[in-house]
Amino acid sequence: MSDHVSWVKGHGTENDFVLLPDPDGHVHGRLEPGLVAALCHRRRGIGADGVLRVIRSQAYDDPSARQAAAAGAEWFMDYRNADGSVSEMCGNGVRVFARYLVHAGLVDGVAPVAIGSRDGVKTARFQADGAISVDMGSARVLDPVTVGVAARQLPAIEVDVGNPHAVAVVGSLAEAGPLLEAPWHDPDAFPDGVNVEFVVRTGARSVAMRVHERGAGETRSCGTGACAVGAAVAVGDGLDLPVDLDVQVTGGDLVVSVRAGDEAGTVGVALTGPAELVAQGTWPLT
Amino acid sequence: MSDHVSWVKGHGTENDFVLLPDPDGHVHGRLEPGLVAALCHRRRGIGADGVLRVIRSQAYDDPSARQAAAAGAEWFMDYRNADGSVSEMCGNGVRVFARYLVHAGLVDGVAPVAIGSRDGVKTARFQADGAISVDMGSARVLDPVTVGVAARQLPAIEVDVGNPHAVAVVGSLAEAGPLLEAPWHDPDAFPDGVNVEFVVRTGARSVAMRVHERGAGETRSCGTGACAVGAAVAVGDGLDLPVDLDVQVTGGDLVVSVRAGDEAGTVGVALTGPAELVAQGTWPLT
Repeated sequence: MSDHVSWVKGHGTENDFVLLPDPDGHVHGRLEPGLVAALCHRRRGIGADGVLRVIRSQAYDDPSARQAAAAGAEWFMDYRNADGSVSEMCGNGVRVFARYLVHAGLVDGVAPVAIGSRDGVKTARFQADGAISVDMGSARVLDPVTVGVAARQLPAIEVDVGNPHAVAVVGSLAEAGPLLEAPWHDPDAFPDGVNVEFVVRTGARSVAMRVHERGAGETRSCGTGACAVGAAVAVGDGLDLPVDLDVQVTGGDLVVSVRAGDEAGTVGVALTGPAELVAQGTWPLT
Repeated sequence: MSDHVSWVKGHGTENDFVLLPDPDGHVHGRLEPGLVAALCHRRRGIGADGVLRVIRSQAYDDPSARQAAAAGAEWFMDYRNADGSVSEMCGNGVRVFARYLVHAGLVDGVAPVAIGSRDGVKTARFQADGAISVDMGSARVLDPVTVGVAARQLPAIEVDVGNPHAVAVVGSLAEAGPLLEAPWHDPDAFPDGVNVEFVVRTGARSVAMRVHERGAGETRSCGTGACAVGAAVAVGDGLDLPVDLDVQVTGGDLVVSVRAGDEAGTVGVALTGPAELVAQGTWPLT
């Protein structure tokens, strides 16, 4: 292949990605952390929260990709964080990934599409209004915990969505302040850190939230965070399931669908929202 | 023309721009503030500090462009801020603009090139090491003033580089804190606000700086800010002119050349540094 990479930029509720179409895996050897970080740099590169390489599951010698291929998922989302590290899954990312598959004519945009990821095969569904849904699996609403922000202690609920969350209902989203630093958390409760969601109720079935993602700071949107919030509200309020909750994140509007879980103590969650492609090009330019 | 816009992204010391090649002025009617803001949005668009439309001076019915054409400047830098408003000039922008002219084969990259702007015709010069210089005109080092940051008062020097600056020498760049808010300034001294530079000395002819641009917040680089700092140091230290000062900004390394001024009380300043093109593409993607 040439020294140039073709890319597409897209976002879901302002969680943005550089997609690298690489169906046959030719880019793989070059997708080093330095290249990913350069692509994602917001001033010296294209700028994004991460890179989504679009590769056929059969063309990628990654154990998760092999499992995806065996499960019949033709396409694999090879997701990298902006710092170049490998990442497992991203609810907004898989929705943008599905949008790209339609754009490129690789799927029809009607039938659900199975997409491989390092967190297993995810199914994306195309809604009549243009939104894309992805099943996010199980969420487990756990114990009361305490988080601290701006010298205040706030009661919160621990929610496990594959990664750890603490959901704190507050009177105003301004209470969390500028969120320059990670909220305080009990290191015994969250030895690996925690994503913290601040939530205000905006209606019987709607909330607004801000999120501080561990390692990333405050972000415009977080798919697992929205699902953690939806699960905490549905379980905490004892809502009849299934139920759809409108979850407004800083970067846009999502819907979290909460259903009965496959096992005791869990609920199932799905994330629905916009996924848009905004530009395409080549990189680098020399 | 088609509904798609071709663009190039570039940056100078991480002051980044979307360049819109539009030699014959076909984009003009569509270059509304909303389009500029959409292009510059860092998550929903390409992302940049501003848009530089590349248009022939003769193709643009702007008074400044007519003056540029009359002065023999073939190309005009139609600069827009990220919010869509029209802007006059940008020292890093004109250097990136010159780099694009070379990239596109519109100039040879050897002879100095005259570039029209709303602040008059600027001359860009190509250095042997790949850097690009631009003459920034006159700077006037004025009176002592006071700025306030993080509840501290700091002595500073007012410098006029066409726009107002206050240059404060500090012991450590950390002293300015996170700079989330504009530093306090005397509204009588700066009725229209002021750009504030915080400077530490790093050698006999070198400094490092951070800058808070009025209306924009802390930025990675500011061409007029670097020139204000260079002028303040050269005049304050009574250096023999001409003199080159290394000015490290957050986004990279610049050289400010300070020479005797054309009139009493002024010095002349030129800005030299890297100007890089990083990607190209089309927008929107539909």
